[in-house]
Amino acid sequence: MSRKGILTIISGFSGVGKGTLVQGLMNQYDGYALSVSATTRNPRDGEVDGVNYFFRTREEFEAMIGNGELLEHAEYVNNYYGTPRAYVEGMLNDGKDVILEIEIQGARQIKEKMPEAVSIFIMPPDAQTLRKRLVGRGTETAEVIDKRLKRAVEESEGIEEYDYILVNDVLSESVEKLHNIIQSNHNDSDRNLEFINKIREDVKVFSEGE
Amino acid sequence: MSRKGILTIISGFSGVGKGTLVQGLMNQYDGYALSVSATTRNPRDGEVDGVNYFFRTREEFEAMIGNGELLEHAEYVNNYYGTPRAYVEGMLNDGKDVILEIEIQGARQIKEKMPEAVSIFIMPPDAQTLRKRLVGRGTETAEVIDKRLKRAVEESEGIEEYDYILVNDVLSESVEKLHNIIQSNHNDSDRNLEFINKIREDVKVFSEGE
Repeated sequence: MSRKGILTIISGFSGVGKGTLVQGLMNQYDGYALSVSATTRNPRDGEVDGVNYFFRTREEFEAMIGNGELLEHAEYVNNYYGTPRAYVEGMLNDGKDVILEIEIQGARQIKEKMPEAVSIFIMPPDAQTLRKRLVGRGTETAEVIDKRLKRAVEESEGIEEYDYILVNDVLSESVEKLHNIIQSNHNDSDRNLEFINKIREDVKVFSEGE
Repeated sequence: MSRKGILTIISGFSGVGKGTLVQGLMNQYDGYALSVSATTRNPRDGEVDGVNYFFRTREEFEAMIGNGELLEHAEYVNNYYGTPRAYVEGMLNDGKDVILEIEIQGARQIKEKMPEAVSIFIMPPDAQTLRKRLVGRGTETAEVIDKRLKRAVEESEGIEEYDYILVNDVLSESVEKLHNIIQSNHNDSDRNLEFINKIREDVKVFSEGE
């Protein structure tokens, strides 16, 4: 069976509980690792280079882009954020299933460079639930709510580009399903061509030897 | 989430334990149904029409072929065997995940007619284990063993055409993995386009209403 790790891209509506879900997966199961992003923003108190982020200067980051060292990158509020390919590939080669929480633009960039990555879009059980989460407890301004709902419309555009959707309803069940979806991909025949060929060759040798 | 059942094709080397695996799946989990084949062979003692097989005359069977009523069919030792489309589709529409144990020629015919079917090839942990199962306890003639090994070589030809491989080592673990592979496919975004579109429409309506 496939021993190389699988890169899993997690996207989903804001407020749908992606972070909690990924945290649950990491706590409950072995064999997973979180991707660590590179960024040009300044470290906040307590943030450690190589743990929370790889902190880089703008020049360093642009060199990484130029050298194709990033699986994806984007700029927000004058800072770069990106996913270092070497870090992810190192983890995958160690057999870790790497989890990467990211938005659709990044997901598209990664699928282009690593089509074997598995992508999962986290969904609310229904739109009403999502609305409640976005509208909150009525303490937000109309402007904030409006912005969130507009963002949700944008986020909903490319859902079918993802390999899977996962409804986040009961957390413990969702964590287990997320785990099962990722693990099932280890059984994908495309990920096991070496093993398949080995068995085929061995069977041929036996057959000729008898 | 997708409520329509999934048709799962199970193939694998003779002697690898496909039958036991499928039986374990049926015993341990709800929501599965076995496909029932049509055949022109005579019923054996205790076999019930519509349970073990749909027993048909040669004329009836050939009419089913002509009318496109079979997902696949083949002839062995002067008898036809085939998979009735209506029976399978009825089960799928009832939300049952239908299991069909079949050889590669049949698997190919089905994938052509129902590309959304999931196909799984059951593998031994290694070729040595397979060899032991095929060679048996030394009570078989060399001719029988030779025939089995040649068949195994043939069976090994098209493994990578299957969506998944599953190593049948520890039975209880294999049954659980089989279940997880099939269930993960319910999260396939292609199987949930209706749900995706519904959420997208609802979110749009909220956004415009605020």
